[in-house]
Amino acid sequence: MMKIALAQLNYHIGNFEGNLSKILGHIAKAKIDGADIVCFGELALCGYPPRDFLEFSDFIRQSEKGIEAIRKASKGIAIVVGAPTVNPVVEGKDLYNSAYFIAEEKILHVQHKALLPTYDIFDEYRYFEPANSFELVEYKGKKIALTVCEDIWNIGNENPLYTICPLDEYAGQNPDFILNLSASPFSYNHAEERIEVLKANVARYKVPIFYVNHVGAQTEVIFDGGSVVMSPNNTIYEEMPYFVEDYRCYNLDQVLKANKNIEQPKDKILEIHDALVLGVKDYFGKLGFSKCIIGLSGGIDSAVTTVIASRALGPQNVRVLLMPSQFSSEHSINDSVELSKNLGIQYDIVKIEDIYHCYKQELNPLFGDLPFNIAEENLQARIRGMLLMAVSNKFGHIVLNTSNKSEAAVGYGTLYGDMCGGLSVIGDVYKTDVYALARFMNKDMEVIPEHIITKPPSAELRPNQKDSDSLPDYDILDKILELYIEGRQGPNEIIARGYDEKLVKRILRLVNINEFKRYQTAPALRVSSKAFGMGRRMPIVGKYLS
Amino acid sequence: MMKIALAQLNYHIGNFEGNLSKILGHIAKAKIDGADIVCFGELALCGYPPRDFLEFSDFIRQSEKGIEAIRKASKGIAIVVGAPTVNPVVEGKDLYNSAYFIAEEKILHVQHKALLPTYDIFDEYRYFEPANSFELVEYKGKKIALTVCEDIWNIGNENPLYTICPLDEYAGQNPDFILNLSASPFSYNHAEERIEVLKANVARYKVPIFYVNHVGAQTEVIFDGGSVVMSPNNTIYEEMPYFVEDYRCYNLDQVLKANKNIEQPKDKILEIHDALVLGVKDYFGKLGFSKCIIGLSGGIDSAVTTVIASRALGPQNVRVLLMPSQFSSEHSINDSVELSKNLGIQYDIVKIEDIYHCYKQELNPLFGDLPFNIAEENLQARIRGMLLMAVSNKFGHIVLNTSNKSEAAVGYGTLYGDMCGGLSVIGDVYKTDVYALARFMNKDMEVIPEHIITKPPSAELRPNQKDSDSLPDYDILDKILELYIEGRQGPNEIIARGYDEKLVKRILRLVNINEFKRYQTAPALRVSSKAFGMGRRMPIVGKYLS
Repeated sequence: MMKIALAQLNYHIGNFEGNLSKILGHIAKAKIDGADIVCFGELALCGYPPRDFLEFSDFIRQSEKGIEAIRKASKGIAIVVGAPTVNPVVEGKDLYNSAYFIAEEKILHVQHKALLPTYDIFDEYRYFEPANSFELVEYKGKKIALTVCEDIWNIGNENPLYTICPLDEYAGQNPDFILNLSASPFSYNHAEERIEVLKANVARYKVPIFYVNHVGAQTEVIFDGGSVVMSPNNTIYEEMPYFVEDYRCYNLDQVLKANKNIEQPKDKILEIHDALVLGVKDYFGKLGFSKCIIGLSGGIDSAVTTVIASRALGPQNVRVLLMPSQFSSEHSINDSVELSKNLGIQYDIVKIEDIYHCYKQELNPLFGDLPFNIAEENLQARIRGMLLMAVSNKFGHIVLNTSNKSEAAVGYGTLYGDMCGGLSVIGDVYKTDVYALARFMNKDMEVIPEHIITKPPSAELRPNQKDSDSLPDYDILDKILELYIEGRQGPNEIIARGYDEKLVKRILRLVNINEFKRYQTAPALRVSSKAFGMGRRMPIVGKYLS
Repeated sequence: MMKIALAQLNYHIGNFEGNLSKILGHIAKAKIDGADIVCFGELALCGYPPRDFLEFSDFIRQSEKGIEAIRKASKGIAIVVGAPTVNPVVEGKDLYNSAYFIAEEKILHVQHKALLPTYDIFDEYRYFEPANSFELVEYKGKKIALTVCEDIWNIGNENPLYTICPLDEYAGQNPDFILNLSASPFSYNHAEERIEVLKANVARYKVPIFYVNHVGAQTEVIFDGGSVVMSPNNTIYEEMPYFVEDYRCYNLDQVLKANKNIEQPKDKILEIHDALVLGVKDYFGKLGFSKCIIGLSGGIDSAVTTVIASRALGPQNVRVLLMPSQFSSEHSINDSVELSKNLGIQYDIVKIEDIYHCYKQELNPLFGDLPFNIAEENLQARIRGMLLMAVSNKFGHIVLNTSNKSEAAVGYGTLYGDMCGGLSVIGDVYKTDVYALARFMNKDMEVIPEHIITKPPSAELRPNQKDSDSLPDYDILDKILELYIEGRQGPNEIIARGYDEKLVKRILRLVNINEFKRYQTAPALRVSSKAFGMGRRMPIVGKYLS
């Protein structure tokens, strides 16, 4: 009777001491539980993605030291853990992305990853040579196929990215079960995809799969956990919880004969909510910060951002500034005060009008009688940004950015103004989903004043301004943006779906010419399959659809 | 007698119309010259690097249309041009990075690239499947090996990145000569490396190489041209000029029997100077802008940036603001006025003191009696940034950033303040090289007032502040930074070279904890082998050497 433990942990990139201590703690726990094998995630020891830290041999040596400590802790248990290993062959990349199988103080096997994701946020071929051999591990009479993340993903795709299939390589050797160490990031449709892939693999190979994922955020990339044990009869034996650390121990015999199939219900808005809360929490925790500051405008974006921050850091660690101008409506202040009181957070009102006039006066010799234009609009947004940064610098609060994905896409925001901040909380959430998040937050009690949700959106940078003056309705805008950004459809494909040609071309052009703005904005917590930032790499001086 | 023309051109990413027209123009020219073959660069038709535009099938269709137009222009001449092609096999990446050989309105051969650089700024394996076959083209009795950029680079390296060598594959088929279509970006030591590689190839294969490169900047990536024709006796038959478009036609017989070896002298500072001028020029030209604005502080960084801008855009298109505070020294203004007059550029003086006090007053209820600290220092830098942006928004000038690489490395700059701007001109130039650039600019006549070069550097954000209060001397700082950033040495390796342990650890920590700042800064013109930005990908929440 074999017992297999899965540790779904929140690692911290480059924090070898912290990660090792967490791993050793769970090895001890698994020994107490009588586990035969305990499994950790892909590149668990160094955290994922380590990016160009991998190019430092000092970094690799630190990782090797950690493996040595784990080896010494393996008396009486087998440990499966991910770490980079050095490629001994001169030709090819210097490293492999490997899974160690360690038991009784011996490294019994090191299996390299074969399928190296090099798309979206992934750069694995930048660092790693793909595996060229596939050997099962024999342990306590069982034959085990060790796989790393993507290695189980080359199945059932219409357009496979890879020319080989690691599990086909193993299949001829008749494994008893498959272990998969993953670092599979969240997007609101990805948990379903994972379960589909696991099911397709079990259907094909008829053996159980123990799939262990990371949990926790590394800047913008959020790992959602949701580790899974699949029975060979293609049912979900267990789906571990999402967005929290967890550890569970499974009896292989029970998994083999089980017939239960319990899949957790998935809800897009709930998942996004939980992902964003975890994303904010880990950004602060991993950087050693505790307090944030947000500019509360009276609009829905800053309101939703503030609720998330309050849930992530606690209301005592959230401070907001209300910064009215001559163009601000009375209700913007009232609504913001009400929201602050509902949340129990500190708020201050700092007027920007005098500072604005001071700038106008100093610039008067240069501007003369030229009419009010975007220069004056942006001045207001930038004064607000500066005030937030000043409080940040004085008291150590980190500014949270409140831009949403729709406005980031079309450049409806002021660089160094409302686009400032260390982290963009809802920068990968379309405006229509920001509304859905607000409704979700209010489902049990009114946290966000109803008026914030129902009033027409406005930047309030000139009299009676409304977003709809210069942008189409968000439900149309967001659909076109999603087809272009997530769907990578061209103008003709989008127009063919019935959208107005002139509008489509205008929006696609806006997205492309605003690449320079997005280049300089904070990392945005990634919740979709295609977020701005490291996963979407676009030229700035390009002239395409622009 | 075969004549081969090389067109070293400045392409524009995604500008199919512009690139095609340039290519067609040079085909016509080559026909007049009686050339048998005319060669263009790697991915010339779409520009390099096209990045994620390649994921849009609309983009690929536009490229295919361009190839069709080139095919129709091939009566009486052979055209060799780079473009993406669709991989017809279901497995693997969707595209190849290919060289077309087109003649007499027929596509005679399409050779795919085998070695796909996926390091530093390169992401080719993100998009392309590597070639798996290598066939010579037969044309007018000659056997030609077609190669794309990196394909000739797997030779003579101690630690080759790739497991195959395309030229070895061709060698058995006895080619008469090698054509190489490149998009090989500038760094101040790269032209020498290219010539070394070309020599190593000719020494091994004993046939001439016609190597044609791109010229021109695509945002931060600068192509320097310097196309080369190598004779089979391992001499440089011709090295085309650097940093300008050029077109030349060669007689194969003469190349075969020639014995001349003329290598252009290389000078690091001259090359950096020319690269930066071209970088600024193309950023503006390709985005359709003409005018820039710069904050002139009286320091050497903004002085050097302004000279480069003036040479790139013409003095009539450069405007500067002098923005003294209560901490500014008298000479800062005088030196800046003198520089402006030397260059013949428009300057205005806008004082920041009143705006600063206005902020202080509004923040007084929050700040109370707390002592002057980084909040007040950054306020000043940010007021200056805002003034530049206001003029930018009012008149259409693009703000040029003046940060150097040393300060970007250690975070000695204010986010949204002196770190603002659309393009960082000297952000990949260490401070010690900024001084060398200033001396170089002054070699024929004093453009930059001597006092700007000789006075001790200071941010002037508090009384009597000097850079040396918080940073080591730049000659030590820059050496440590270069070992860490370009050299990718760890702390132990650097300390082993004799640098102070405490200092090394402090500097490496500063570099790592300031990743969040660099994430939000403008693209910096790349002149070194390891610039901040797209070629150096670091985690923000990492905890390594920090």
